[in-house]
Order: sequence, then C-alpha cells, then structure tokens
Amino acid sequence: MVRRIERKPWEDLDPMRDSTLGPYTPPIATVRPGEVVEIETWDAFGGVVVPGQTYAEAVARGIKLHVNPVTGPIEVEGAEPGDTLVVEILDIELPERGATAIIPGFGALEGWLRQLEPRTKFSRISGGKVVYVADGGEAVEIDVAPFIGTIGVSPESEAITTISPGPHGGNMDCPDVRPGNRLMLPVSRPGALFGLGDVHAVQGDGEICGTAVEVPAVVTLRFDILKGRRIGWPRVESEEEIMTVCSARPLEDAARLAYRELVDWMAADYGWNRMDAYMFLSLAARARIAQIVDPLYTVVAKLPKRYLERQA
Amino acid sequence: MVRRIERKPWEDLDPMRDSTLGPYTPPIATVRPGEVVEIETWDAFGGVVVPGQTYAEAVARGIKLHVNPVTGPIEVEGAEPGDTLVVEILDIELPERGATAIIPGFGALEGWLRQLEPRTKFSRISGGKVVYVADGGEAVEIDVAPFIGTIGVSPESEAITTISPGPHGGNMDCPDVRPGNRLMLPVSRPGALFGLGDVHAVQGDGEICGTAVEVPAVVTLRFDILKGRRIGWPRVESEEEIMTVCSARPLEDAARLAYRELVDWMAADYGWNRMDAYMFLSLAARARIAQIVDPLYTVVAKLPKRYLERQA
Amino acid sequence: MVRRIERKPWEDLDPMRDSTLGPYTPPIATVRPGEVVEIETWDAFGGVVVPGQTYAEAVARGIKLHVNPVTGPIEVEGAEPGDTLVVEILDIELPERGATAIIPGFGALEGWLRQLEPRTKFSRISGGKVVYVADGGEAVEIDVAPFIGTIGVSPESEAITTISPGPHGGNMDCPDVRPGNRLMLPVSRPGALFGLGDVHAVQGDGEICGTAVEVPAVVTLRFDILKGRRIGWPRVESEEEIMTVCSARPLEDAARLAYRELVDWMAADYGWNRMDAYMFLSLAARARIAQIVDPLYTVVAKLPKRYLERQA
Amino acid sequence: MVRRIERKPWEDLDPMRDSTLGPYTPPIATVRPGEVVEIETWDAFGGVVVPGQTYAEAVARGIKLHVNPVTGPIEVEGAEPGDTLVVEILDIELPERGATAIIPGFGALEGWLRQLEPRTKFSRISGGKVVYVADGGEAVEIDVAPFIGTIGVSPESEAITTISPGPHGGNMDCPDVRPGNRLMLPVSRPGALFGLGDVHAVQGDGEICGTAVEVPAVVTLRFDILKGRRIGWPRVESEEEIMTVCSARPLEDAARLAYRELVDWMAADYGWNRMDAYMFLSLAARARIAQIVDPLYTVVAKLPKRYLERQA
Repeated sequence: MVRRIERKPWEDLDPMRDSTLGPYTPPIATVRPGEVVEIETWDAFGGVVVPGQTYAEAVARGIKLHVNPVTGPIEVEGAEPGDTLVVEILDIELPERGATAIIPGFGALEGWLRQLEPRTKFSRISGGKVVYVADGGEAVEIDVAPFIGTIGVSPESEAITTISPGPHGGNMDCPDVRPGNRLMLPVSRPGALFGLGDVHAVQGDGEICGTAVEVPAVVTLRFDILKGRRIGWPRVESEEEIMTVCSARPLEDAARLAYRELVDWMAADYGWNRMDAYMFLSLAARARIAQIVDPLYTVVAKLPKRYLERQA
Repeated sequence: MVRRIERKPWEDLDPMRDSTLGPYTPPIATVRPGEVVEIETWDAFGGVVVPGQTYAEAVARGIKLHVNPVTGPIEVEGAEPGDTLVVEILDIELPERGATAIIPGFGALEGWLRQLEPRTKFSRISGGKVVYVADGGEAVEIDVAPFIGTIGVSPESEAITTISPGPHGGNMDCPDVRPGNRLMLPVSRPGALFGLGDVHAVQGDGEICGTAVEVPAVVTLRFDILKGRRIGWPRVESEEEIMTVCSARPLEDAARLAYRELVDWMAADYGWNRMDAYMFLSLAARARIAQIVDPLYTVVAKLPKRYLERQA
Repeated sequence: MVRRIERKPWEDLDPMRDSTLGPYTPPIATVRPGEVVEIETWDAFGGVVVPGQTYAEAVARGIKLHVNPVTGPIEVEGAEPGDTLVVEILDIELPERGATAIIPGFGALEGWLRQLEPRTKFSRISGGKVVYVADGGEAVEIDVAPFIGTIGVSPESEAITTISPGPHGGNMDCPDVRPGNRLMLPVSRPGALFGLGDVHAVQGDGEICGTAVEVPAVVTLRFDILKGRRIGWPRVESEEEIMTVCSARPLEDAARLAYRELVDWMAADYGWNRMDAYMFLSLAARARIAQIVDPLYTVVAKLPKRYLERQA
Repeated sequence: MVRRIERKPWEDLDPMRDSTLGPYTPPIATVRPGEVVEIETWDAFGGVVVPGQTYAEAVARGIKLHVNPVTGPIEVEGAEPGDTLVVEILDIELPERGATAIIPGFGALEGWLRQLEPRTKFSRISGGKVVYVADGGEAVEIDVAPFIGTIGVSPESEAITTISPGPHGGNMDCPDVRPGNRLMLPVSRPGALFGLGDVHAVQGDGEICGTAVEVPAVVTLRFDILKGRRIGWPRVESEEEIMTVCSARPLEDAARLAYRELVDWMAADYGWNRMDAYMFLSLAARARIAQIVDPLYTVVAKLPKRYLERQA
C-alpha cells in the first residue's frame, strides 16, 4: 500500500510555512529515493472558493486567504546541493468539480480589456471531461488534462512565495508536469525540501485570466535522485520529448533561457556542437507559453527525442 | 491553366520597391476576387546563399544583399480600406534544397551563447523530409511543413521593411500560414497592395537562430475580399482552429494582443460575453511563439472551433 | 535676413507626405550646409486642438486628424549616405498657449489607472513660464523648456510614421534637442530629407500621459554635414555633455543601446578602452527617460565632457 | 554619544541570515523611534575585493563569497504591519578607497559589448572626490555622492536575496537614498526587521557595469514610524522633491509603477484629482534610471515640492 502524506488542515495553514518554498521551514515528512507516495494538495485558492462562495464573496466575508498553499516541505533522503531531484508523476486524482476566477488586478489582459469584472465559475469534472457552462447556458466540454501547477524545492537561501516560479520550480503552471512525465529539479538544500500544490484539471496556454480549473487533488509520485548531476532550471522528460522550463520577464527572456538550456542539454548528453544545436532547434523545436500571469513568466521549450541520437 | 506571376529578376531588385510593403510602389500585377494564381517567390537571402557560397562568403565577396525581397505589390481588384483580404493558401512547391544560417548580430540567443559563429548549412528536401546533416555527420530527418514567412498588404501611409511584421502582416514567420489554411489581412489601401516571399520548408517555434530552412518557392493562392469587414490584425483559419497573429515587443504584449483579438472574435462572431470568452481561453486556448528574432516578436493564439458554437 | 520655410496649409496636409519620414516624398525646400533657416512647424495634434475644441470634440466632430505632421522633407545639399547631418538649434519661438490631452488608449498609465478620462487642458505661455491651471483652480507655474519633439531624416528604404522614433530620429520627444544644443543624425539618403515638428513648451520625463505642452512654433536652425562620418543613432552635444538618443522596446534595450553608443563614442573620439569606458559610465553617466508612450521608447544617455580628455 | 551597531565579523556571515531580508532571522539589535544610531556596513563584495585581490582572484582562490551582506535585522520598537518606517539618513562616513568590477555574466551590456573582460579597479576617495584612473593613466575626478545601495525591511512571508529590490526596498541602488533625505518603507512584519549595506561612494544612472564605487561604511540614521500609514513602495523625500522608488521588469513597468505611486501620493496628500495629477506629471516630473542590472530594475520618479500646494 502506498503511503499518503496528508495536507495540513485549513486552520493550521500559515503564510510563512505553507505559502513559501524555502529552507526555513522544518520538513513535514521524509521520503526515500525510489519511494512512491500519495500526496494531498490544496487548490490555489486555499479551499475558500466553493459552490455558494465565489472568490469575491470570500474576500467580502473577511475569510483568511491562504495564497496557493503547498504541501511540504518534504525531505528527500540523501539529496544534496548539486544533485538533481527526479519526480515521476504517476497519477493525479481529481475531484468532481473545479473553480475558475477572474480577479481584477490580476491576469494577462488586466488593462487590456475594458470593464474587467470579478467572476467565479465552477465546472463539473466527469468522464474525462471538464464541463464549462458558457454564459449563454451551453455546456462546452474540454478533455481533462491534469497537471501540477506549483511544484518545487527550496532555493539556497531565499524563501520564495508559492505564487512565483523560478529556477527552483514553483508556480510554473506548466501542463507538461503531468502523469507519465518526469520532472527534474535542481537541489540547493540538503533533503531538497520539496513541496507541491495548485493542481489544474485543464489549462490553456498562458493561463490568461490568471486561473485555470483549480482543484484540490491527490497526487501519486515516485522520487529519485541523480547524484552529482547539476542542472540550472527545471526539466521535464516525456516518452517523446525533452523539455526545459524557464521563467523570467520579459517573456522573450524566459524563451531564451529555455532554448539555451536545451542547447546545453543537447551538448552535454547527446554530443551536439552548441552552434549546431542552436541551428537545429531553429528548425525543429516546439515551445509552449505556460503562463503570463505570475511574477515571472514561464516558457517550455521542447525537442522530440527521435532527433536526438548521439552526434559525437 | 493557372496564371503565374513571376518574381523580378535579381538584377532588377530594389530595396525601396522590393524590400518594403507600402503604398508608394506601383503594382506589378492585378488579380480579381476568386482568382487562383501561382506566384514565384525569392528566399529570404535574396538568392545569394547557394551551394558554394555561404552567407558570410556572399558578404565577403561584396555581393549586393537584397533583404527578404517580396513579390509584389499585387493589386486586388475591389479591395478598399476597411475590407478584409482573404488569402487561401492552396499549395507551396518546394525546391530540392534549402539554406539555414547563423548570422552573428542576429538571432534569439545573440549574447546568450558564447562564441556565436557564422555558419551556413544546406539541407536536402526530398520525399516530404528535410534532411539536416548534423556536425557529427548523421542525417536527421524532419517532416517538411512549408509555409509563407512573409506575407502582407500595404499599411496606410508607412512603407515597412519586409524584415518586420505588424498589423499589416509582413514577416510574421507563422507556420500556420500554410496550405489548407486561410489568412485574413486588414486592407488599408485601395487594391490592398499585397506581397509575399520568404517561404520556409520547416521552422521551429521561435525561429531562434534567425533563419529556418529558407527556400525560393512557387505558391498557389486564391484571393477573396470580405467587404466592409474590418479586422485589426492578421487572422488565420484552419479546418479546426481560429487563430490570431499579433506582433509586438516585449513578447508578452504580442501574446496579450493575440488573446485580446481572440476575445473580440469570439464576441463578434460567436456571441460570447467578453468576460466569459476571457475565462474560457484561460482553459482551452493554445499559443505558438512564431518568432523572437524580428523587429517585433510574433505570437499566434488559437482556439479549436469545436468549442465555438454560438452562445447568444 | 533669415530665410523662412513655411509649413503646409492645413488643407494640403497628406498622411503619406506629411506624417511619415521617408525617401518617397519630393523635397519641399533645399538648404545649404552652413545655412540658417527659420522653419514653421505644426503641433502634434495637427492644429485641431484649440480653445473651444478639445481633442475629443475634434474627433466627435469628424474633423480630419493629421497625426503629428512634420515640415519637410528638406533636402540638405551635399549630404550623402554615410555622412552625419548636424542640426544646430538656435531658437524656438513659442506661441501664447499650448495644449495637453489625455487620450484613452494612449499613454504610459493606460490600464494602470482606473477610469482614464479623456481631457484636454490649455496652458498659457508667458514670461518664460507655462501656467498650468490645476483642477482646484490654482495656477502652477513651470519654467518653459522648449524643444523639438519630432526631428529626423529619411531612413534608407522605409517610410516611418512620424509617431515613431528610431535610428533616423523621429518622434524622440527628447528635451535635450533644445536651443543651444547640436543634434547629429545619420544620413541614409542623398540630401538627408530632413523633417521636423511637434515642438513642446515643456515636458516631464517619460511624457507619461502621451502629450506635453503641445505647440506650433517657429524654429531657427543651422545645418551642417560631417562628410564620411557614420553614426548609428542620433547624438546630441551641449556645452557640457555628450548624449546618445536611442529608442527600443523594452525600455532597458533603449538604455542599453544608448550606453553602448556612448561607449563607442568614448572609444572612437576620446581614445578610451571600451571596457574602461563601460566601467567609467557605471560611475559617472546620467540618463533620461525621454518618453514611454510612442511605438518605441526613448532613453538619452549622457556624460559630462569634463571627464573626457583624451586617454590615448 | 551615538550608539553604534557593529557589522558581523566576516567569519560569522551566513547566506541565510545576512544575504536575505526576511522574517526568519532573529534581530541583532533593537532601536526606538526617534533614536539615532551609527551602523557599520559591509561592501557589496562582502569584503573580499581589496588591493592585491581582484574579484576574479578572490573567486580563483576559492574564497567564500558573501553576496551583498546587510547589517540586520534591526528591530524597530512599535513598528507594525500597515505602518510606514521612516529612515532619515544623517551621515555616511566613507573609507579611503572603493572598488569597481566588471563581472562577466552580470551587467547591463552583457551580450551587448563584444569581449567582455573581467576587471577590477580601485579608486581613491579623498577631498570629496573619487579619483578614477583611466587605462591611459590619467586621473579623472568625480564628486563623491554617497548613498545606501541596499536598504529595506522584511517582506511579509518571503526571505528575499539582498541582490534584489522590491516593494520592501532592498537592492534599489538609488542615489537619492543619501544624507539629507528621508526614506519611507512599508512595514510588513512586527518590528519592521530593517537591514542595510552596499554603500556606494558614487554611481552613474543605471549602474551599468553592475557595480559602482563599492565601499564598506558607517551610516548614521534616525528612525521613526508613521503609525497606520500604509504605502505600497519605498518613497524618498528631500528638501525639494517627493520621490517614489519602484522596481520591476521590464524597465517601463518600473517607471509605470513609480509614476502611479506619484499620482497616488499627489491625490492622497495634496488633494489632486488623479487625472489632473497624471497630466501634470507629463509636464513636470523627473525620473532616474537607478539600476538595470539586478533581478528587478529600479526607476525613481520625482516631483518638485514647489508645485505641490494643496489643490482641494
């Protein structure tokens, strides 16, 4: 039977411990390399947006808002600075419903659309579909594509809000962090001090209104460590692609970082000359705008593995 | 038999006439709405990069460089400011070889990779594949995916270099401008004054080294006009998706523009409330980074049509 | 007596000829190197904002709006591509009143301030002061500091809207282009094809609402040519400082360009090692945000001449 | 006699405690409102760049680098979240020498100048002058203009590296934080948890090579609290000007934030209508690019107080 790490009760959530990733908070659990665990996660609203209570209503009622709480820190035995933490995403168990909100002051088109109105919508999740009910009343079905929005490790000395992505992972909102794929994160502290939350049942590229279909979830992961393997930014590997996930402002810098990481990966692991890799990516790479709503923006650069037989 | 519009001989190319899109150059041909024509195009190097002569060698030999020459202006009968020009891409005929170059001073990783070296590579195009020969000697095959890199109409009063994209189209380097799809462009001058060139046999997202597999080509198009239909930026329609193509710096502004255009399209043509459209795109939109190497950067925002039955 | 070049009558203004800088428009006058001329200029509103008619009213009344018309092209005898045009600003004669407008959809805080309202205000200019009447009724006096907002030459092949700045000059909105200073512009076409307009009686750094105290004016200039002296971007020289004026998006790229031009200037004319110049500017340079409202943003980087005795 | 708060010995410096600003570190001292204290500060290099040891040599020798250590946290009695901390800068005592370094991989022209070389230069500070010795051997004198480069309070839940500026202050590199001026900071934690370091003897706008004349120093400050006065970003007040100091990427966002804060200040304290303030700043504001080298870029927007008599 798989061990389950429970999320903290709502009453115990604390901004310093649960809404940051950093080295200052003692671990809530320890896992061993190779171990499979189930982890319960809070949704990005910290549980306060539920049928009968929109985000605006929760604010109006003075309910304490826990911003994007993560479950963690989880200590990974044997992880040391300079290693790479590998997180294999085995499964995400979704609830029956998720929430999406427009929150004025937040979102990619803030100031670009006139009359931005606060609104919250709940979508049923059933039979592999998210059922979005448009204002006109029609149900529009979208295939579920669950992934972990916020997932990362401790930076070396900073405690970073779980709203922000970075080299440590965090709020990347990257749909490729999904069941079947492996996420790699650079370890900066002993034990890695891993945390996660903010699962999305489905999300569009850019997550433009600032939220996706936000859900609490149960996530099944297997942990592993690549000893002495140092990476600069999160990486993802699927059956078919290698991917780098970088965050910056402006957005082109996130893209440049992600492509440079791909060049480095092709050079280090597949023997490509760096100029050759640069030119080849200009012909064959794919990119995804993960999100343009958080403190740094996130781009995923991708290359199919079928191109990657060793060059040298 | 289809009428063919020939490209100008190399000796007659002129920067003012052939490397800008604008209202100052007399048309070289006139087409009627509904007419199908074949158009010959120059490659982005203006024909000087050929086996035995790299880009750097052409420069060193003092050969006159015609930057991204287009075939045009082509006058479309009956097109008036405020109309939309529809260009249906029926076919692109590729040559047997294309060229890719790294040109120091140009490209997304200029200043991000150490020791950027000028280099030119020729790739064979055959059997639906581009055959890239890596430095290690191995041939890597990429499926051809030809599209028109530079395609646009005249702005109202500016003459804009064919290196730049904009609301008028131009150097969008958008792989979705491909056979089977329809491109819509906002008409700003009588006759639209259409031009095109810069076909790519295949391109990665971002076109990061600054060039793709650059080819001269013969393109078959059908023209049409939507009278009195005013759009702000280029749009593309495929069998399955609607797409908006916007260009700006920084890149997030290109994304914001493209998403706002999608919101407007959903509101105007499909009856969606704009806030509802904004929220729905946050769940279901796709985006492509077309290029991050030209004077403005280009993003394509997309929504599957299957979601788009009328809401009101 | 000084020759006067008159501005075109309002009825004759034409967007292609008068609201672009480019090589496609025949000159309206020719000047000789060394010659002093007076030139009449239109204000940025093209003369339609006058007491009794705000910008919004002019739009509502359907009056034709000529956007930022310039007086030109003026041909400078003997100027050839690769030369530098020197324009010494001898005098600016102001009218008795100027106009400032907030135009929703335009301006640096568009989308950053709630409830942006269109408004136009007229300020009296008298005794060396601009008299701004605040909403509360109080008159606030600002010292006049007149300068030429839009001033430039023809690009090589583009016709660029007079709304935009660039390497050719244009709408730089740089308060250092003022009486007593010399502006240098890179010549790209025979005769330079110079134009100017958009005088401001005074302007804050950034020109944040999108307009300054906009005035028609009479400007007295002396022209000169530096033969065979090639520069990349506009430069200004005052009694005390050398300055470079560069435009880009994002704003940091304008700053980087301007500082790189200063490094190049220090190396070429004053014998500084480029690394040494780079380090010294980090201690002693000054910068001005000229404007953050036009299609490209403008930064002026400055170094006092007293630091600049020859190093090699 | 004035109380002195000593900086930690070099051996005791710790990245988590001394190179972040945050709520996780216990205070090293407590001050009372109204109290004047002298505080010793480390230079930005953490003391390792000294005559006989350049930055590159310190790295090569494997010396532990403490990045921009601050002296703190200093608890201010009675400061509560929602208050404003006022720090009056009374004096900065400079040493006899400061260091400037070009560090490849860092600085505004990284990737913009070819062949960036590591170099360190020491400048004598004497008689109110910084004496920079140019490569050609000539001594160039710059007037000293000392200020505190890094100064801030704890964020609410994050621990932020002292390399970064933000709403909490931090590495703003703002030359207006100088003797004679008052800095205001938003309090987010009980006791404010104040820290400072990184004094510069003089700095150019933008701090473009990434460093200024970096010095250890002794700073004399008076602390005060504005109870229940909530501000969003650091503010500075001099005899003649009010100033807002905001940090973001891209740089135009820093400028927009700083100008919006000025609009808010004019509205709240001087009774200006916000649209009127926006327009007036377009005529009379000044701005400074403080730095474009840190994780966020910093702009200071300024308005002379003489314009600010009450409007309502």
